[in-house]
Amino acid sequence: MTQALAVVLAAGKGTRMKSDLPKVLHRLAGAPMLAHVLGAAASAGVKRAALVIGPGMEAVGEAGLSVVPEAQVFVQADQMGTADAVKSAAPAYEGADGPVLVLYGDTPLLRPETLKAVLGELEAGADLVVIGFEAADPTGYGRLLFDDKSRLAGIREEKDATAAERALTLCNSGIMAFRSGKTLSGLIARIGNDNAKGEYYLTDAVGLAYQDGLQTRVVLSNGEEVLGVNSRSELAVAEALIQRRLRAAAMEQGATLIAPETVFFSYDTVIGRDVLIEPNVIFGLGVAIEDGATIKGFCHFEQARIGANVTIGPYARLRPGADLAPGAHVGNFVEIKNAHIAEGAKVNHLTYIGDATVGAKANIGAGTITCNYDGFAKHKTEIGAGAFIGSNSSLVAPVKIGDGAYVGSGSVISKDVPDDALAVTRAKQEERAGWAAKVRERRSRDKSK
Amino acid sequence: MTQALAVVLAAGKGTRMKSDLPKVLHRLAGAPMLAHVLGAAASAGVKRAALVIGPGMEAVGEAGLSVVPEAQVFVQADQMGTADAVKSAAPAYEGADGPVLVLYGDTPLLRPETLKAVLGELEAGADLVVIGFEAADPTGYGRLLFDDKSRLAGIREEKDATAAERALTLCNSGIMAFRSGKTLSGLIARIGNDNAKGEYYLTDAVGLAYQDGLQTRVVLSNGEEVLGVNSRSELAVAEALIQRRLRAAAMEQGATLIAPETVFFSYDTVIGRDVLIEPNVIFGLGVAIEDGATIKGFCHFEQARIGANVTIGPYARLRPGADLAPGAHVGNFVEIKNAHIAEGAKVNHLTYIGDATVGAKANIGAGTITCNYDGFAKHKTEIGAGAFIGSNSSLVAPVKIGDGAYVGSGSVISKDVPDDALAVTRAKQEERAGWAAKVRERRSRDKSK
Amino acid sequence: MTQALAVVLAAGKGTRMKSDLPKVLHRLAGAPMLAHVLGAAASAGVKRAALVIGPGMEAVGEAGLSVVPEAQVFVQADQMGTADAVKSAAPAYEGADGPVLVLYGDTPLLRPETLKAVLGELEAGADLVVIGFEAADPTGYGRLLFDDKSRLAGIREEKDATAAERALTLCNSGIMAFRSGKTLSGLIARIGNDNAKGEYYLTDAVGLAYQDGLQTRVVLSNGEEVLGVNSRSELAVAEALIQRRLRAAAMEQGATLIAPETVFFSYDTVIGRDVLIEPNVIFGLGVAIEDGATIKGFCHFEQARIGANVTIGPYARLRPGADLAPGAHVGNFVEIKNAHIAEGAKVNHLTYIGDATVGAKANIGAGTITCNYDGFAKHKTEIGAGAFIGSNSSLVAPVKIGDGAYVGSGSVISKDVPDDALAVTRAKQEERAGWAAKVRERRSRDKSK
Repeated sequence: MTQALAVVLAAGKGTRMKSDLPKVLHRLAGAPMLAHVLGAAASAGVKRAALVIGPGMEAVGEAGLSVVPEAQVFVQADQMGTADAVKSAAPAYEGADGPVLVLYGDTPLLRPETLKAVLGELEAGADLVVIGFEAADPTGYGRLLFDDKSRLAGIREEKDATAAERALTLCNSGIMAFRSGKTLSGLIARIGNDNAKGEYYLTDAVGLAYQDGLQTRVVLSNGEEVLGVNSRSELAVAEALIQRRLRAAAMEQGATLIAPETVFFSYDTVIGRDVLIEPNVIFGLGVAIEDGATIKGFCHFEQARIGANVTIGPYARLRPGADLAPGAHVGNFVEIKNAHIAEGAKVNHLTYIGDATVGAKANIGAGTITCNYDGFAKHKTEIGAGAFIGSNSSLVAPVKIGDGAYVGSGSVISKDVPDDALAVTRAKQEERAGWAAKVRERRSRDKSK
Repeated sequence: MTQALAVVLAAGKGTRMKSDLPKVLHRLAGAPMLAHVLGAAASAGVKRAALVIGPGMEAVGEAGLSVVPEAQVFVQADQMGTADAVKSAAPAYEGADGPVLVLYGDTPLLRPETLKAVLGELEAGADLVVIGFEAADPTGYGRLLFDDKSRLAGIREEKDATAAERALTLCNSGIMAFRSGKTLSGLIARIGNDNAKGEYYLTDAVGLAYQDGLQTRVVLSNGEEVLGVNSRSELAVAEALIQRRLRAAAMEQGATLIAPETVFFSYDTVIGRDVLIEPNVIFGLGVAIEDGATIKGFCHFEQARIGANVTIGPYARLRPGADLAPGAHVGNFVEIKNAHIAEGAKVNHLTYIGDATVGAKANIGAGTITCNYDGFAKHKTEIGAGAFIGSNSSLVAPVKIGDGAYVGSGSVISKDVPDDALAVTRAKQEERAGWAAKVRERRSRDKSK
Repeated sequence: MTQALAVVLAAGKGTRMKSDLPKVLHRLAGAPMLAHVLGAAASAGVKRAALVIGPGMEAVGEAGLSVVPEAQVFVQADQMGTADAVKSAAPAYEGADGPVLVLYGDTPLLRPETLKAVLGELEAGADLVVIGFEAADPTGYGRLLFDDKSRLAGIREEKDATAAERALTLCNSGIMAFRSGKTLSGLIARIGNDNAKGEYYLTDAVGLAYQDGLQTRVVLSNGEEVLGVNSRSELAVAEALIQRRLRAAAMEQGATLIAPETVFFSYDTVIGRDVLIEPNVIFGLGVAIEDGATIKGFCHFEQARIGANVTIGPYARLRPGADLAPGAHVGNFVEIKNAHIAEGAKVNHLTYIGDATVGAKANIGAGTITCNYDGFAKHKTEIGAGAFIGSNSSLVAPVKIGDGAYVGSGSVISKDVPDDALAVTRAKQEERAGWAAKVRERRSRDKSK
């Protein structure tokens, strides 16, 4: 038997999104919807993918290939219904023995568990499996019809349904699977377009299969996971559902989220045990937090590692390449980019550390800036272990501050500082006694004129 | 026929608010409740307004006049019920042919659509229209009574209702409209105060009109929109409902709100298409965002314009007069006030730009401060196109940095810099070898004594 | 009669928390769960406490003693059920006449009102009181059984219940009270362990008391307050419920919370009247806000006082010892620690004030840093009344800026400045005409090679 194949339909224009970006490339938890669908299939063991896109949607194909490099991409020339879309991908499955799943690029919440249940039904002998769901309000959905032996007999679209059929609440999600490419080819060839819109509907395959005496089955989903995204509002609903899953998983693994609804994860965030997260934290892509870290409120992280027992925030921003070793302290209004902060180092206030290394137990004073960009290129700052950088200093890169060195407050350091040395740049403090009083008096005199 | 008039009752003290501010001046989405009511009337085409305030509530009258400059303001001397309040405004409507709507300053969610439906009923021949709503739990509300020909016959207050009447769920919102000032005058003159509180209730007009054989009608509201605000908790509920409307509208127009429930708009916020808004953004009054802009988390904006394709945040604060041209970049911990940032300019970290212009493609280093205030007056900073301001610099206004000029890191610039010149203020870097080691040793010796 | 005693069971390991911290020490609104329970008991007038902990849980005992210094701590050697746990604390109650309440360290939402109702039943003659609750879905809870005279006759665990008993929805919270230590001792001595787990269950006391003809009563709780916390998800639910109470109380007292669901209080936060709080504010422990203050979004406070009519934020961080006098202004990206800011003083942008005093009406320019730490010790900065600190200045502590003194922008002040004097440190501004143009040209030539 050949490997299972996922045919992912992604040719829809998504006009209700009112966007220049193709619908399935809109992101949820940091990844395009399409990647969620391909990821769920892969997690269920379906490694082959055929992607059906619309004309001019090369970006969708590329996004798909970045997730599944061996995916085949097909263009559906005219949009003549779901069966027509699936037919566009026929070269990927016709004549094949392996199972074929038909998924949708805009149905991103589907869980691998549910797909595994579908594959299980096929292995147990089913020829065609439909994912169904119980709808509290089924209005608008196709209803699943069963014969008197409880066999799935067909799908009735709402507009064609009798009053009794409309009362049914078990609905069609649109997601289907076929025992083999051959089964699919055989059925799809016979689907006609004798309907109001003159389109070819994949749902018709169910009735045809039943009439052929094939085994048809239903796998129940939890409803939430077959949500289709057609507007920005639905995108927001899907995001909320995904975030709920991610938050529950983080708590389950032993993190405390004081207000889970205010913490936003990416699909790939990694969170350790006994991590404490205050309200209002945003995890961009590629963040890992190790055990025992404390994340205070209002943090914003992206492509960063936060070591064990680090204390960070509030208002800390980690940009790509920020790497905090265990026990580092990062405080408020601090931005760190492409920099390693070693064990026990402190960067506590109003600081920018970019393209730098900060040695163990170094102390970076408030208002310190690594001047990493000279208008032409980026340069590196190296701060040694145990160094002390006085507040409001500017470190003009490339520059190296030695181990145990001491930089006086308010200095602009443009030459390397040896280990254990003091470096300072400071103009003489000059004073004019009474100057402020005189100026205030003159100003107030001027005003009263 | 004279123009329609809205009589807005705003004399209530709002003691449950526990506030020194009159109730109807508490704000929702940045505007006083009263302004929301007057705005809804105006949107429905009702341009004339009469405002009924309590003694000593001049601030309420002024707030009303700032929205509807031609509004008439009346003081209700003693608070003797809603009919008494409406009577206070008699000079605005008595003898007039135009329709009169009676609205409430503390019912701020009323939609123009509903008021239009009310006006439509009057045009279609109704003499008196009541806005009703279906209550899941009608306890405490007056119930609408109908005769056997389904004509609105009266309003029964809960305390006077029979058990059968209490089971009714169609309730009175209090909002009413009359065919003309004359109709209203005629009815209100006959309302008595023979009740427990000895007050004059406008609701009695319904029964009187019905007995006169006048045409009485009901317009159904969605329930939410007739919410009255009497406490800070109800204010918060109303705010949440308004925010929900504003978020839905932004998404409908093609903006992505990753977490809509964390984005707070003002009533006048303007949002373009393909704008991406991360979680936790606060829009104060007077903000416009053009197409394609990306707003990262934790931003706070007020009286500002964000041009097309700008990337801004996280943690960016725009204060009044901040004007970002298309393609500008504003990063974290940046405050901008009364300043134009030209196309492609970058202000990325820990910076204060106030009373300034920043030229196209200029680069403002981390920690730059425009020193716009000298303790006596504000002065202007001009930064030319393509200029480079080294990190941690202070620009002492009034000062002008020429096009293409270059300011060295950590400089304090108090004189103008010509185009293409380098300017720097820097004291010599001085060093004392071994100083830090010696001091550490001495301190540790002192401690161990 | 001796004083009432609360026996608080806190020996559970809380393995589902996946934490190294004992379960009852996880925090809600800033205080350990255990402290909430002890606090509720104290508020209900129960001042004596006996704490039952597990072996090796000294930290739990200490936490309890920090709330109730005279508490007695007992170790339950083997965990053999709730009756066994209560028995561990026998020395605290046996032979005593005063009432005994049995509470749980992981049931932190219990309200003092409910405990007072329990004590009231005991005073009115009850021998044993159980706190019950109505469960929408009672699955898993013990059901309260009543005899035909509506007397509480026993508690049936779900697994032993008949179908009819399972249909009951009035459930046992586990929280009980006894007329006296003697009553408790007498009942507990007879509880056996003839059950599946071989444990001793305190719930058996109810049936025994009933059989003895003792008066047994039920006090109904609101359900929410008997929530037990066994996982991080349940901890988050409990936190949300506590926050809801704290927000409602703040609004009830006359504060406006624009978005209550985004404001996080500690159990001890004090909020005045006509305080306005924008979205996204975090109150750590020990914060008091006086009347009329305005708190803008994204603030983070801890151990701080905010005086009347202060305006603060957005993005203001107050750390322990921050003390803002009435009418002070604190703006964005400002951190204040251990400092008094006097009336009308302004600290508006990108500033760190630590270990300092700022005089009345002083003006602290953007980017000012108090350099309070020299790498060895913390030192103090004193800024006089009416002083003006130019932007981007560094004040190297210990240092004193006199009343009315003026510090030039970008200065590094390391010597005291007399009253009314001007102080400045500034290197000469040097220029090289055309330098920037030349460098750009050279760089671009290098690139094109």
